[in-house]
Amino acid sequence: MQIKAYKLLTSSPSDTTGIERLFSEQLIEPSEVICIIGKTEGNGGRNDFTRDLSMRAFEELFAERLGIGRKEVGERIIFSLSGGCEGVVSPHIIVIGRYGKAVDKPLPLKRLAVGTGFTREFLAQEVGRMAQVEETARVIRQIVDELKVDLKDVHLVQMKGAIPHYSYEEGVAAMKSGKPMRSDMVYSRGASALGAAVATGEVKLNELSDDSICSDWSKYSSTASCSAKPGLTRTEIMVMANSSYYEGDLTINSGVLKDMIDVDGVRNVLEGLGITMRGGQLSADSTSRLVGIFAKSEADPRGTIRGRRHTMLTDDDISDTRYSRCVLSSVLAGVTGDTAVYVSTRSEHHGPLGGGTLSIIARTR
Amino acid sequence: MQIKAYKLLTSSPSDTTGIERLFSEQLIEPSEVICIIGKTEGNGGRNDFTRDLSMRAFEELFAERLGIGRKEVGERIIFSLSGGCEGVVSPHIIVIGRYGKAVDKPLPLKRLAVGTGFTREFLAQEVGRMAQVEETARVIRQIVDELKVDLKDVHLVQMKGAIPHYSYEEGVAAMKSGKPMRSDMVYSRGASALGAAVATGEVKLNELSDDSICSDWSKYSSTASCSAKPGLTRTEIMVMANSSYYEGDLTINSGVLKDMIDVDGVRNVLEGLGITMRGGQLSADSTSRLVGIFAKSEADPRGTIRGRRHTMLTDDDISDTRYSRCVLSSVLAGVTGDTAVYVSTRSEHHGPLGGGTLSIIARTR
Amino acid sequence: MQIKAYKLLTSSPSDTTGIERLFSEQLIEPSEVICIIGKTEGNGGRNDFTRDLSMRAFEELFAERLGIGRKEVGERIIFSLSGGCEGVVSPHIIVIGRYGKAVDKPLPLKRLAVGTGFTREFLAQEVGRMAQVEETARVIRQIVDELKVDLKDVHLVQMKGAIPHYSYEEGVAAMKSGKPMRSDMVYSRGASALGAAVATGEVKLNELSDDSICSDWSKYSSTASCSAKPGLTRTEIMVMANSSYYEGDLTINSGVLKDMIDVDGVRNVLEGLGITMRGGQLSADSTSRLVGIFAKSEADPRGTIRGRRHTMLTDDDISDTRYSRCVLSSVLAGVTGDTAVYVSTRSEHHGPLGGGTLSIIARTR
Amino acid sequence: MQIKAYKLLTSSPSDTTGIERLFSEQLIEPSEVICIIGKTEGNGGRNDFTRDLSMRAFEELFAERLGIGRKEVGERIIFSLSGGCEGVVSPHIIVIGRYGKAVDKPLPLKRLAVGTGFTREFLAQEVGRMAQVEETARVIRQIVDELKVDLKDVHLVQMKGAIPHYSYEEGVAAMKSGKPMRSDMVYSRGASALGAAVATGEVKLNELSDDSICSDWSKYSSTASCSAKPGLTRTEIMVMANSSYYEGDLTINSGVLKDMIDVDGVRNVLEGLGITMRGGQLSADSTSRLVGIFAKSEADPRGTIRGRRHTMLTDDDISDTRYSRCVLSSVLAGVTGDTAVYVSTRSEHHGPLGGGTLSIIARTR
Repeated sequence: MQIKAYKLLTSSPSDTTGIERLFSEQLIEPSEVICIIGKTEGNGGRNDFTRDLSMRAFEELFAERLGIGRKEVGERIIFSLSGGCEGVVSPHIIVIGRYGKAVDKPLPLKRLAVGTGFTREFLAQEVGRMAQVEETARVIRQIVDELKVDLKDVHLVQMKGAIPHYSYEEGVAAMKSGKPMRSDMVYSRGASALGAAVATGEVKLNELSDDSICSDWSKYSSTASCSAKPGLTRTEIMVMANSSYYEGDLTINSGVLKDMIDVDGVRNVLEGLGITMRGGQLSADSTSRLVGIFAKSEADPRGTIRGRRHTMLTDDDISDTRYSRCVLSSVLAGVTGDTAVYVSTRSEHHGPLGGGTLSIIARTR
Repeated sequence: MQIKAYKLLTSSPSDTTGIERLFSEQLIEPSEVICIIGKTEGNGGRNDFTRDLSMRAFEELFAERLGIGRKEVGERIIFSLSGGCEGVVSPHIIVIGRYGKAVDKPLPLKRLAVGTGFTREFLAQEVGRMAQVEETARVIRQIVDELKVDLKDVHLVQMKGAIPHYSYEEGVAAMKSGKPMRSDMVYSRGASALGAAVATGEVKLNELSDDSICSDWSKYSSTASCSAKPGLTRTEIMVMANSSYYEGDLTINSGVLKDMIDVDGVRNVLEGLGITMRGGQLSADSTSRLVGIFAKSEADPRGTIRGRRHTMLTDDDISDTRYSRCVLSSVLAGVTGDTAVYVSTRSEHHGPLGGGTLSIIARTR
Repeated sequence: MQIKAYKLLTSSPSDTTGIERLFSEQLIEPSEVICIIGKTEGNGGRNDFTRDLSMRAFEELFAERLGIGRKEVGERIIFSLSGGCEGVVSPHIIVIGRYGKAVDKPLPLKRLAVGTGFTREFLAQEVGRMAQVEETARVIRQIVDELKVDLKDVHLVQMKGAIPHYSYEEGVAAMKSGKPMRSDMVYSRGASALGAAVATGEVKLNELSDDSICSDWSKYSSTASCSAKPGLTRTEIMVMANSSYYEGDLTINSGVLKDMIDVDGVRNVLEGLGITMRGGQLSADSTSRLVGIFAKSEADPRGTIRGRRHTMLTDDDISDTRYSRCVLSSVLAGVTGDTAVYVSTRSEHHGPLGGGTLSIIARTR
Repeated sequence: MQIKAYKLLTSSPSDTTGIERLFSEQLIEPSEVICIIGKTEGNGGRNDFTRDLSMRAFEELFAERLGIGRKEVGERIIFSLSGGCEGVVSPHIIVIGRYGKAVDKPLPLKRLAVGTGFTREFLAQEVGRMAQVEETARVIRQIVDELKVDLKDVHLVQMKGAIPHYSYEEGVAAMKSGKPMRSDMVYSRGASALGAAVATGEVKLNELSDDSICSDWSKYSSTASCSAKPGLTRTEIMVMANSSYYEGDLTINSGVLKDMIDVDGVRNVLEGLGITMRGGQLSADSTSRLVGIFAKSEADPRGTIRGRRHTMLTDDDISDTRYSRCVLSSVLAGVTGDTAVYVSTRSEHHGPLGGGTLSIIARTR
């Protein structure tokens, strides 16, 4: 079994020419594709329709190539499209495929493996509470088991978290019962991340309670990358890890960023991939090995970075989410020389408060 | 003669408490101050009133301390306040003072020297044309001579360029005469920068003509940092250089950034200051030596960076000027660990197209 | 022959449920639809992808219902989707269909008629010059003749203007020849509008020259509503008029707005439709008669409205296009009580400088 | 006793030339001025420094003219500067003065009277709760008594509400005690408005409880116009009413707007001033009678206006506060022909949900 991954620059959210070229050059078969992850050039907010446009274009393409309906495509391929290409970020997608036969005994070198799964459907009152943390952790562990990887080899737990709708009356009832609804972006992302932290053993379940979610920031995952989508009733999960049962030329590493300018944190992740920073930017050769750079960013909610005031949270013209993506993308592009970086924002329980997580896929060559 | 420089974080554009503390702690006398350069938290655009608010607060303070009128303060002290603290940038000012007696013979070590001057008043039709380039170069050379420094020791030519007003009728007449008015931000900055390039010998006067201004991007300065202000009739110039006739513990270096993520360019400037990048962020000790980081940024007008598309110029929600400042500030903060960076935007003839200039003042220790 | 028109509110740019309901309730047949005109909730700028998303959704729907390809749908139905639902504007579309047999002799009452056409392909150097004005006028006249309507009965000339691409070299060559390229939004809209003014006899061809386009604002159309689209090589034209050869219950009227708060101008257009403003908002009954409200808006380029300063052009956080749409939409919604108004922005030669055009379709009942 | 009021257009937030002209033309004495109310061209948000700049300029002017300190000016004159001149709004101030001797018996005609006062200092835990409502109501009643006006003659209760700071620990303690802190903009504005409603008898004190504040929107004031300022410990109150003990040529009226396009609501307020809308814009003569137009606006939090979706709350590029000010200002400017309108945003308990309040000062002539 082997993972293929191709980074493709896009000329617009609906640009499918790169994928079509992969097909025509027989680098990948439509049926091998398991995931498309990328950045589209919207604002990443509520009125960002670039993700919908992109999804629709990809679904149409795969529907035609696979001879199935558009809806079936969505069930078969995971689309992680994130809006917001602030600053130097070049809009791009990473097409990930899986092919080949299962390997039956462990190989000497570990290579990138990808597994996917879904939680059960959540009730609105479960979101942002321990029920979500536990179920998320359970499914991640199940995927990890299926991949036959060690927990320490898990380097990216990409999730799109559930946010079930609830009625105004249900909201009032929850408030009155003393357990106000938390079925929103912030809590869903936070609980998803803690689910990953529990699954990988970074946090023990008994260290957590409903109260610690989005409150005790000392508990966090160093591999999670969570978004959340209103209306989604179950969480979509993709786990990337290094496995002895996978072949190929791809490997992954991850680490924690302690704040948005934590270049030492970036260095640590690169070094784990055998890529050395020598003072200055990576060499062109090292840059060319990078296939996917995935990070979570956050404008430090305390209003300071390293004790100095920042103004991202008090600027009423530009959202802090756009700023924090721009900052971390620029830092990553500066260090690596690669502007096709995937930075997604707000990082509750992803690394320490004001920090984030970083995962990088590289060719082993 | 010696230059003093203090970097002060501000809590708002009108925060003068830091300067007042410098006075009360007798670190600097009001009468020694020759320049205040800093970033305020506005949008850096036409409706950015943070610079006015800041100016007014500083002028009032100095008027009271020096017992002179507010207008006199403005003639005595150069205020270079630049709006736009995007991303991690911490609003700050650098208070620069000069004191001590003239040194009459050269010292073994060169130290930071600062000189200032003004061009003659420009006519609107001269701006953005060779007349502006030549007069600007002349005044810079004069300041350089007064400072008794070598041209290669000039590392920052900070200018606020003239943009004389002209009437609608004068505009039409200029258009008809075949020499349309260029009395605007773009041309004034461009001609100022070429003036610096000519003064320092980077570009020869006979290589230039009216046509090459804001058109032949192969000609540029590597030390200029120019803004321009509508209504200003003469250009304000401040030259920073290393001089054998100055004492103290401050030194300056500069270089060109070939694009907004040119970390190797940053390394070169740091190395000239005896600060080594070892792969990762500067050590805390090195960071603490940095007194002023001044750079010019630009969203590459070709729409690409290193061949890859960026979207800064097609985003109609956020100005490219805000993006480019955010990008370069983030890169500089990541490399140096210092978030109090001064990045000003649009860099016509400041380094190559899509690039910029970088000057850093550091303590020698 | 008869025109049908239905105003449908949309829940998102890709919402086709309203049209599907029209079909299922047999109010209109897919094959009868000739035009969909509406507002989507993007920024109306270069990075507004809501129009693409909407187009794609509509094309898919019609492709399926008509059993033709998506591209053929685009050739058969005119889509005029305009981004920007600022303020109270409710995203909506107006579905326009034509059905029935040609009427062979004039009827006593004139009713709404709609005709469409295309100019020949333009060269880049023709755009924004007399060649575009003349060809546009020619095609409008041709459509008017086909509709058998009087020029005074023409009340809306909706156009999507050509903006052919040209190479950098072609641009330089044009500049050198003394006729710089004008193949941009501003000039294409301006020349389209003057084309309409010539066609309807408001401006005589011999009063115009290349120099007057986007310069002599005393020449304008009172029925044009022009956008322009980069890459389009021919201009799409739709003419709405009252015709003796059309039956049905729809009628149209138009007029000029002298500035963005010209409520008296609105009153005049309503009165022509037999709808009286009595001091306050229209009665609910009158509001219910309004089927389509189409206007062009503009932040007065002189920086004042009725002699008083406005700040729409100096606000670097929000585009003047968004402001001007918000202003005129609010004025129209206030007067009429209808928030589903179609306001499109920048109005070169659409009414006087700082003003615009207004066309309203109403049921006759 | 008599009130003078002059509307002055400003060329920038620090423009004091209009006031200086009033002084030099002896239309008003510096010592007569009791209030300056106006709109400055910032974003009206947290990073809007135009109000500070304006305050500083006015304080300096009055300090010099009255020979007192800047701080004393602030205690003597009420400055109600509100940021946000969206759309057609022309930045302006209204200078209000009081002069003459007290009238000892009632006159046949009622004229504009202005009274001011301050609440006691609030504790953080009182804000947004009944303690704030009651104290606010008490002070308003006291001012009303001093003015010797009927409650029905009160037409504007302009307030800047207290928002005392509290420590993180105090916040946690309040949360634990079951009474979480409400010392924020929303609750302070809401409780201030309810204080006005209680004072004027629109709402009975016993109809209210802590729970109804910012929750039971059926309770509201029709004369309040409240902002709130972080750090302010007592609420500043200004009451405008028609009084038999005041002379002059100014009168005021007020009313409720049921939503942001409620032109009938505007008509009612105008009619109370003897100004009739005849279908179209006010006549130039009527427009010239308008001295101050003060309104509160709100993007309806339910996401709809008259049952139709609006997108002001889901647009992550532009704040709903800017949109709602732009909308209501445009409607008011359209109806009245006056672009110098003062619209301030978010209107908790100011008129019904999604609506606001409107007060207009006019010359009686």
